[in-house]
Amino acid sequence: MGQGKGKAPLRLGIAGLGTVGVGTVKILNAHGARFAEQLGRSIEVTAVSARDSNRDRGVDLSSFAFETDARALAARDDVDVVVEMIGGSDGIALELVEAALSNGKSVVTANKALVAIHGTKLAKLAEQKGVALNYEAAVAGGIPIIKTMREGVAANGINRVYGILNGTCNYILSEMESTGRAFANVLADAQAKGYAEADPSFDVGGIDAAHKLAILTALAYGTEVTFDDIEIEGIEAITADDIQTALKLGYRIKLIAQSVPIEDGSGIEQRVSPALVPLGTPMAAVDDVFNAVALEGDFVDRVFLEGRGAGEGPTASAVVADILDIARGHIMPTFSTPADKLKPFVAGNAGAHEGAFFVRLQLSDKPGGMAAVTKAFEAEEISIAGMNQQEKGHDPQTGVPVVIITHECREDAILRAVENIAANPASLAAPRIIRIAAF
Amino acid sequence: MGQGKGKAPLRLGIAGLGTVGVGTVKILNAHGARFAEQLGRSIEVTAVSARDSNRDRGVDLSSFAFETDARALAARDDVDVVVEMIGGSDGIALELVEAALSNGKSVVTANKALVAIHGTKLAKLAEQKGVALNYEAAVAGGIPIIKTMREGVAANGINRVYGILNGTCNYILSEMESTGRAFANVLADAQAKGYAEADPSFDVGGIDAAHKLAILTALAYGTEVTFDDIEIEGIEAITADDIQTALKLGYRIKLIAQSVPIEDGSGIEQRVSPALVPLGTPMAAVDDVFNAVALEGDFVDRVFLEGRGAGEGPTASAVVADILDIARGHIMPTFSTPADKLKPFVAGNAGAHEGAFFVRLQLSDKPGGMAAVTKAFEAEEISIAGMNQQEKGHDPQTGVPVVIITHECREDAILRAVENIAANPASLAAPRIIRIAAF
Repeated sequence: MGQGKGKAPLRLGIAGLGTVGVGTVKILNAHGARFAEQLGRSIEVTAVSARDSNRDRGVDLSSFAFETDARALAARDDVDVVVEMIGGSDGIALELVEAALSNGKSVVTANKALVAIHGTKLAKLAEQKGVALNYEAAVAGGIPIIKTMREGVAANGINRVYGILNGTCNYILSEMESTGRAFANVLADAQAKGYAEADPSFDVGGIDAAHKLAILTALAYGTEVTFDDIEIEGIEAITADDIQTALKLGYRIKLIAQSVPIEDGSGIEQRVSPALVPLGTPMAAVDDVFNAVALEGDFVDRVFLEGRGAGEGPTASAVVADILDIARGHIMPTFSTPADKLKPFVAGNAGAHEGAFFVRLQLSDKPGGMAAVTKAFEAEEISIAGMNQQEKGHDPQTGVPVVIITHECREDAILRAVENIAANPASLAAPRIIRIAAF
Repeated sequence: MGQGKGKAPLRLGIAGLGTVGVGTVKILNAHGARFAEQLGRSIEVTAVSARDSNRDRGVDLSSFAFETDARALAARDDVDVVVEMIGGSDGIALELVEAALSNGKSVVTANKALVAIHGTKLAKLAEQKGVALNYEAAVAGGIPIIKTMREGVAANGINRVYGILNGTCNYILSEMESTGRAFANVLADAQAKGYAEADPSFDVGGIDAAHKLAILTALAYGTEVTFDDIEIEGIEAITADDIQTALKLGYRIKLIAQSVPIEDGSGIEQRVSPALVPLGTPMAAVDDVFNAVALEGDFVDRVFLEGRGAGEGPTASAVVADILDIARGHIMPTFSTPADKLKPFVAGNAGAHEGAFFVRLQLSDKPGGMAAVTKAFEAEEISIAGMNQQEKGHDPQTGVPVVIITHECREDAILRAVENIAANPASLAAPRIIRIAAF
């Protein structure tokens, strides 16, 4: 992999030889000579670890020492940086990372769950030891969002961060939109194609996006990484009708992860949920498996980044960028703010959020149904910006789908209004509320 | 601006107190305490320079030493970093930067012309002295594209870089599209609003975008910065009709700066010119004064960044990001590749470029006009993908506007075909060729 000139090589121990681990080796093979020229030192893999040492992974790993227990990498004298690609917030991944940092080795990880759950603790350990804990690959794959937040827009106070952080959900929603098929149908297809896991709940339930959001929140506001305080709602209940109705009204439905101070000053809201995104905004144009993140800074205004959020090449690209920073000696606090200065996260009062809403109701066709709805909105002083009543046959069992778009109002007000409507006999199915994003 | 803890403060000398210089002071005032906490050292302005020391700039500069000659900043013992915001590729800006680097001071500049024309020479000087030459603000304002290229996607071989690098042009084209007004009319309006300079030729003629492209090319391909070899065409000849016709065909017309190896292996093409950008791509969605850059890496695939390309806040945000890197001690080669290892730039043979084209003709209404056109295309084996003949009255003096969209062909072939058509008496006005971008 090229000869360093003068400076000692940077020696890697790679834990986990799935697609990202293998991709990392491929990049070092492809561009190692250039890296050595740019850095004045070479980057060398000395040891690897995986469950199965014999599997053919399409790259030659025979010159690397093999450890059956990944944790042994943390103790090896010939490893300067542990690259953790095992996954999972606890267990071996956590033990390995803690041991490596304790031994004064820098860590590069692609493990969002680990950083989302244990980030603050691990950051403190890394900073005590003066080593790096880098995790670019943990959020939005190939998009250099961690570097952008830690360094690129570091001059700014951040007013909001939001994005599309799960490619599986974005693929499913894009497919539902273009084909008109139902969620379950598209999901099954995505599973067959390998775009969705056999157990898809982490993705479609919003957990994966929430792990990533917890990390972005800490970077944006200098708060301790706090996964527990995220409101999470997945895309399972989105219907093809919702998507088509939203399109007619000028919106696309996306799974949006957003972290923003609540208007009443009560704290920050971290939320993963479907939202209607106005057509014409860059976020609405994010298609297929792509991810995107937007930041709003007090000086830079909006910066928007889009790219591939997963896959061997994009994720390994982020891992190697982290390795290159360590090779340059560019080490900084994990979450920009020194870990022992991170403030406790204070969750805002979501009820005080102000915005417009999309409300889907299923109303009986009898007289008085719509009157009950308008009365409930009026009682909360919510004004209606638009309505879409679908003519789907007048089956007294299922009723008529009605979609209402509100003007801006408080979230607790719309929740009360809709609870009121749900309690009325004219409401034949549970109402559904989706936020309309103000991007 | 906060007390550093242990480490010495980083002391700035700011040359040029226009909007960006003043914006830089504002950011340091607003966020200096946080920077000191994050860095463990404070950032302090010690001296400034501007033409007029007495003008009220809306920030208090009274505690800074004032130099009437900016070049004196390079000699001051109490300045660690010279922040150059004078502008112009030569003259005082160049003298100041050379003197500062020679004296072992790092330089932060927002001056694209300077870096585009003298970048290689200045990079060599900075690297000899072991100091930084940072220029994030020189390209695309608040978008952290230099950091993204030097570090964020450093793991990749870059296959293409392209973008919308001039906000004035993008504003004019967006306005022409939404209002149907002519170029000259919208330009006059933009000048009145302060979006365009009194002498707009640097912007609308494509020079400003070309300065930025020269810098991106060096970063992408490890070549010496080479402004002279850029093909430059501005937006002056784009008509409201071109824009509306393109829209009907599924494209928006944008001023695109692009650097890409030519298909025949002859070298790299650097080009600034109007192009038809397919609707539905993120680049087509870039509106108003926004800028955007897309990179294509061999592992990361496409990364797309959008943000404000100019203005006090966004540009100062980039300047301060550069200062923060220096305060952290994060210094790297100016163009990633050490300056003495940059390869000479080899311009590719543009004629060998392959793509689709938009051709606007003005044809006489007499028989044989269209036959001459189709014959000219056939002679070059160019097939026509679509045609739009506008019915605009049949004035024998001006003829009928005809727009042709070709399938992919070589650029030299289309040039020959159109030259042939132009020589035919049926062609009543100079034909116009616009590339169709393959994004």
